[in-house]
Amino acid sequence: MSVLITGIGELVTNDPEREGLLGLVEDAAVVVEGSTVAWVGPAAEAPAADTAYDAGGRAVVPGWVDSHSHLVFAGDRAQEFAARMTGEPYSAGGIRTTVAATRAATDEQLTSHVARLVAEMRAQGTTTIEIKSGYGLSVHDEARSLAVARQFTDETTFLGAHVVPADTTPEEYVELVTGPMLEAAAPHARWIDVFCEDGAFDVDQARTILAAGTDNGLRGRLHANQLTYGGGVRLAAELGLVAVDHCTYLTDDDVSALADSGTIATLLPGVEFSTRHPYVDARRLLDAGVRVALASDCNPGSCFTSSLAFCVALAVRDMGMSPAEAVHAATAMGAAALDRDDVGVLAVGKRADLVLLDAPSYLHLAYRPGVPLVAGVWQGGRPVAPGPVA
Amino acid sequence: MSVLITGIGELVTNDPEREGLLGLVEDAAVVVEGSTVAWVGPAAEAPAADTAYDAGGRAVVPGWVDSHSHLVFAGDRAQEFAARMTGEPYSAGGIRTTVAATRAATDEQLTSHVARLVAEMRAQGTTTIEIKSGYGLSVHDEARSLAVARQFTDETTFLGAHVVPADTTPEEYVELVTGPMLEAAAPHARWIDVFCEDGAFDVDQARTILAAGTDNGLRGRLHANQLTYGGGVRLAAELGLVAVDHCTYLTDDDVSALADSGTIATLLPGVEFSTRHPYVDARRLLDAGVRVALASDCNPGSCFTSSLAFCVALAVRDMGMSPAEAVHAATAMGAAALDRDDVGVLAVGKRADLVLLDAPSYLHLAYRPGVPLVAGVWQGGRPVAPGPVA
Repeated sequence: MSVLITGIGELVTNDPEREGLLGLVEDAAVVVEGSTVAWVGPAAEAPAADTAYDAGGRAVVPGWVDSHSHLVFAGDRAQEFAARMTGEPYSAGGIRTTVAATRAATDEQLTSHVARLVAEMRAQGTTTIEIKSGYGLSVHDEARSLAVARQFTDETTFLGAHVVPADTTPEEYVELVTGPMLEAAAPHARWIDVFCEDGAFDVDQARTILAAGTDNGLRGRLHANQLTYGGGVRLAAELGLVAVDHCTYLTDDDVSALADSGTIATLLPGVEFSTRHPYVDARRLLDAGVRVALASDCNPGSCFTSSLAFCVALAVRDMGMSPAEAVHAATAMGAAALDRDDVGVLAVGKRADLVLLDAPSYLHLAYRPGVPLVAGVWQGGRPVAPGPVA
Repeated sequence: MSVLITGIGELVTNDPEREGLLGLVEDAAVVVEGSTVAWVGPAAEAPAADTAYDAGGRAVVPGWVDSHSHLVFAGDRAQEFAARMTGEPYSAGGIRTTVAATRAATDEQLTSHVARLVAEMRAQGTTTIEIKSGYGLSVHDEARSLAVARQFTDETTFLGAHVVPADTTPEEYVELVTGPMLEAAAPHARWIDVFCEDGAFDVDQARTILAAGTDNGLRGRLHANQLTYGGGVRLAAELGLVAVDHCTYLTDDDVSALADSGTIATLLPGVEFSTRHPYVDARRLLDAGVRVALASDCNPGSCFTSSLAFCVALAVRDMGMSPAEAVHAATAMGAAALDRDDVGVLAVGKRADLVLLDAPSYLHLAYRPGVPLVAGVWQGGRPVAPGPVA
């Protein structure tokens, strides 16, 4: 069964074989066959298909690839957020509030909560989602968090090393994370991650935990330099990790290390928005040759946005990215940050993840901040979100 | 025909007879009869009604009252926006680009464009909208702009004095605005407004234009101190206008004048977002006793957001408002800025404009920035937006 999507006023392909960063095609069409893209090009040259959909001159972009989220949790920290807005600083310790609520929740409660957030993201055009554990912090609760996450995505990340739980010493906890917890978690996870930060885990602990993960078949990623300067980013570069996330506080040496290693800096502007930390100067990174991705970091503590369009608007307003760079960072670079080449790009053979915008150009994602512009979403070729695409 | 809306986890009433700024009621219910609110209180005490709707524990807030928008226009300035983000400053002169496109559009094109934006706003929970002219700048085009706007709202504002068109002297244009243009516009308008700013109209011109409007039965409002310091805000206070909008550059004397006059300062944080001007310190105004409203300023040049939830999130993050103050400013104070007491408040006899949030608390409007949280909208008692309320 093939579908011709025609009348696309502006198509963002991210195809490196086309011109410009976004590989734009005007007056475009896409043919979807099953779950993949079968043809991309000017509408006037499009082949026939079993059915046709007219985009009416609107823009189409690849589905967002959100490479950093923490969706498996229970409870609400809206009051903590409100207190922070009156001047209380954000600290990693707040994570423990969510841990207590998550442990108390049933599997069904956790699953339905994740389902709700995944549906919310999909309706906003996110078609690939990485989901971390990290609010269980016990062997049982980390394993079940990942089992829940795995129902929704293959991109699951074991983040037992999110914070040291209240009733354990750091030494004991690292032993647990690298031993029985890792063993229980690994079957449900693709990645292993560590929150490398003052108040969480130091560089040596992060190195130990990532090494144990690698030995158990997981690939490493890292939360680093979110709240303070530190060695996390340089560790990520040294280990050649595919991505290191946050990167809020970077020295020139950190920037050089990222540029030299090719490790992607995944920036999470929603966190800066919701904690009032300074926005990352993405321009500095891009100009130094660092590869930059954008993700939501959707979580109940430091950033409860699920909107990558919002992150794109912030990146343009406050981080020195052009609209094209920001859209690319939240699609193609998000995919690269997950070491994926089947998503984030609209080209023949890639997964048919398309977002129809109620706008003539991707520029409107930054030009119209806060406005829900998604008119339809195809995920793996299937229409999945409400709107004109039904 | 009466409807009982019950199971409201948290109800924002803005009713001054209830406790706190927002007059919150927990575990609440509302009875709607026809187009108005017939009962508000704890769900356990609610009277019977013809039909019932269960809000499922979610929060309900009054519909947004957006007291400042420029929806009657044609054309797109996304490229100008993108250029501005790379460093080009915003200037009032860009308005002329939209004037040319608006004059070239047919009545039908203008009407369908406004209809689209009004529907977009309503789906986001805006149930009262002020709409200005100001992209016609000829007798014919200002009158037809207002006639188009009047199809969608009673809150129409004649803004012939938006900028001086290219082919006229300021003196000639003020004569036109206060003479034949005002005469043609007045039957379609409730308000008269002037863009009092360097590059637009000075204080003396604004005074003359507002006086002419008042003589023709219109009530005055003002764009002032948006791009530079100036006398506009003090003029608004001196004239006792109900509201003066923007207020980005304020001296201490301006603040005192606002506090003394009771003129509402309508802040438009989307403009600061999209032009990179500094955010207004709303805390300074509130602490000085100034009444503050929030509105979108939805327009193609300086700010093309239509989302008051986005404005609320910015006000909390960047302007020193609490979530409660920001929500109040975009509802009850928006109504006050239009001198309306039938909207912006959920109390017996008020218009039944309710927004059901996909969230347990109004706090989520700031806690979850960029996320479309509207699950349903009732406008004048009728369900008008997609979502669970159908």
